[in-house]
Amino acid sequence: MDHNVPGADAGTLHRLGERARAAARRLARASSAEKDAALHHGAVALEEQAAAILGANERDLARASDAGASATVVDRLRLDERRVAAMADGLRAVAALGDPVGEIADGWVRPNGLRVRRVRVPLGVVGIVYENRPNVTSDAAGLCLKSGNAALLRGSGGALESNRAIAGALRTGVEKAGLPADAVVLVEDVRRETVAEFVRLRGLIDLLVPRGGPGLVSLVVEEATVPFVIDGDGNCHVYVDAAADLEMAERIVVNAKTQRPGVCNAAETLLVHEAVADRFLPRVAEALAGVELVGDEAARRLVPTMGKATEEDFAREFLALRLAVAVVPDLDAAIAHVTRYSTGHSEAIVTRDLEAAGRFTREVDAAAVLVNASTRFVDGGELGLGAEIGISTQKLHARGPMGLHALTCLKYVIDGDGQVRT
Amino acid sequence: MDHNVPGADAGTLHRLGERARAAARRLARASSAEKDAALHHGAVALEEQAAAILGANERDLARASDAGASATVVDRLRLDERRVAAMADGLRAVAALGDPVGEIADGWVRPNGLRVRRVRVPLGVVGIVYENRPNVTSDAAGLCLKSGNAALLRGSGGALESNRAIAGALRTGVEKAGLPADAVVLVEDVRRETVAEFVRLRGLIDLLVPRGGPGLVSLVVEEATVPFVIDGDGNCHVYVDAAADLEMAERIVVNAKTQRPGVCNAAETLLVHEAVADRFLPRVAEALAGVELVGDEAARRLVPTMGKATEEDFAREFLALRLAVAVVPDLDAAIAHVTRYSTGHSEAIVTRDLEAAGRFTREVDAAAVLVNASTRFVDGGELGLGAEIGISTQKLHARGPMGLHALTCLKYVIDGDGQVRT
Repeated sequence: MDHNVPGADAGTLHRLGERARAAARRLARASSAEKDAALHHGAVALEEQAAAILGANERDLARASDAGASATVVDRLRLDERRVAAMADGLRAVAALGDPVGEIADGWVRPNGLRVRRVRVPLGVVGIVYENRPNVTSDAAGLCLKSGNAALLRGSGGALESNRAIAGALRTGVEKAGLPADAVVLVEDVRRETVAEFVRLRGLIDLLVPRGGPGLVSLVVEEATVPFVIDGDGNCHVYVDAAADLEMAERIVVNAKTQRPGVCNAAETLLVHEAVADRFLPRVAEALAGVELVGDEAARRLVPTMGKATEEDFAREFLALRLAVAVVPDLDAAIAHVTRYSTGHSEAIVTRDLEAAGRFTREVDAAAVLVNASTRFVDGGELGLGAEIGISTQKLHARGPMGLHALTCLKYVIDGDGQVRT
Repeated sequence: MDHNVPGADAGTLHRLGERARAAARRLARASSAEKDAALHHGAVALEEQAAAILGANERDLARASDAGASATVVDRLRLDERRVAAMADGLRAVAALGDPVGEIADGWVRPNGLRVRRVRVPLGVVGIVYENRPNVTSDAAGLCLKSGNAALLRGSGGALESNRAIAGALRTGVEKAGLPADAVVLVEDVRRETVAEFVRLRGLIDLLVPRGGPGLVSLVVEEATVPFVIDGDGNCHVYVDAAADLEMAERIVVNAKTQRPGVCNAAETLLVHEAVADRFLPRVAEALAGVELVGDEAARRLVPTMGKATEEDFAREFLALRLAVAVVPDLDAAIAHVTRYSTGHSEAIVTRDLEAAGRFTREVDAAAVLVNASTRFVDGGELGLGAEIGISTQKLHARGPMGLHALTCLKYVIDGDGQVRT
């Protein structure tokens, strides 16, 4: 498992996957107490090995700096004592969550006496492909462990030394709890082409969660043969209805756009009903000082400083202090706009009208629809899932924030007393 | 939509997908009453148009016969009045099921007052690729309709005339209920290469259910860019434990193997604990008269007429009156054998021992595990799901028999009164 082994090949990757698979079989039978002990030991190991982890991180940072990495990249990569402590606390928080494994989702008895129940079980091996954020190593491994899955982690080359140090600490913790260290397996072959091999480890990876940009997502969609859940873009809309409380609408728009503009649940487009546009747009434009506004003709007539929005502006996720604005004649037009441009992440309406709220929530097709609340709440922590492995923008398996349950599936257990089919 | 249009291309397929997509938006808002009316009108239309459907089927049969199709293929293709009536009854039975759409899966209130609920909604467009069984046209469309989805159906060339007549009747029924006829769209371009295009209609198909053999499954795994659920092989095992009631075990093995050998939930391998092998194997071999048995050495010592099983025999789904047999030293070996060869479909243990039953159900990784019951029960109808669109052998989204719920997903609906994130 050396760094950048020349000639490291699909065979090596396959063997790592098999090690994770073998560990997964043991983890599936682990008690909640064993898994929680592993998380607590892992947290202690992160703290005890903090100096080594920070040393490894320094070397990654030095390489990034030599390579002329941007400030954003360096910031994502950088660890400090506080961030290591946050990883350890994160593991303890996951340990404190309820164990989804063994839950009985439902059950019933058939007329012939067969007793049917559906029991929640781990998926097996969860593969994560991610970029320069070393904390993902710990956060993702923690969620996998709690849900009884082995984590097969493929981080970036830029964070390799940090990831290796973190994964090493977690493996120590897992072993201390009497579980196999291969519950956490880091792929250290960080060549680009390994990602394409990784997403084709069919039979070894039960769920792939790609955490990266559009390039990674399209590689997964095109090349993956393993099951995956896409954590995609959020081109989120806030629609301010004719019946909106405009003070509330202003607060929600400002929060959804500016509270953390670089994340997927931030708002990218503001739609305003024409009946309130003249009163709302000038005031929200003022409240959004520092945000670049680009709008359609009607919006620009009301806020002359606004730039002109192109088709592209409505279609994209800015992830920046930029907001597209359009005035719509009615609720139907608002829903039609959202239907056309939404990426299916989070969509909000601000209204006091019950019918408008009902139609918007029913007719907009997205992972989450909100009435009179900021899109920024669509997040595992904010919704009470405890922690999240990502936010799914697909419909199958998991939609919206993915907590521990998204790392499990249901198994039919059927008890009989000799029934045969006639 | 002519048959075999020369030069029919991805553009045509795309337009069909867009028609289904547009219909899906309307269907998502349809009431249960509207959808049930469409199913009932569809049933009546099938009955009223039975003569035309049987005429179309005659032409398909004549073509199949000219092409020298096997008796099995011809039997699957053949419709008669009874089979048409069964399709109509199937639609009425689906109408009688509960509507999954609008169900609230769960809900809670956050400390900040946000009210969160998860509501069951249709997926949108369900694509089905299937072979020469014209009844699938009606059965699949009925399940899609009930669950608020549009069905985009790509049947085989061999059944084209039958499928067109059936889809036409269903479209008439849907229109009579005031819903868009494009709730049921049949792809009439039956060239082989269209399947590869079909599975790449990303953005137009929300769920693909391939219903066919290993060739179709591997095409989907390799080529699909749309989300899919695999309805795969069932290499199902029955393990007769040391503590089994041997009379019950005999009944279950015979049923699992012979009641309908050509289906995925039929047993393919019998594992017998060595402590009971000498008593059980000779009697079950006698009870399985007419079934070709192939076994390992220990099994053949006890039943000398048994052929020799190869590695391949344990790995494959015979779908025929053939059964592989192995004697195992203990429960661990039985579980290890199943773990090695199982396709994750249905696995059964026969035992009176609580601990053995518990370990088998927990440690065997399959869609369904059964204790003291035939594997043949793993079926949507038998388990009480009402009807099924297939049996998933994958873990994501749906595992095991897929009823109406598998054609839906959950949407977060979040109600606030002005909450913003701090």
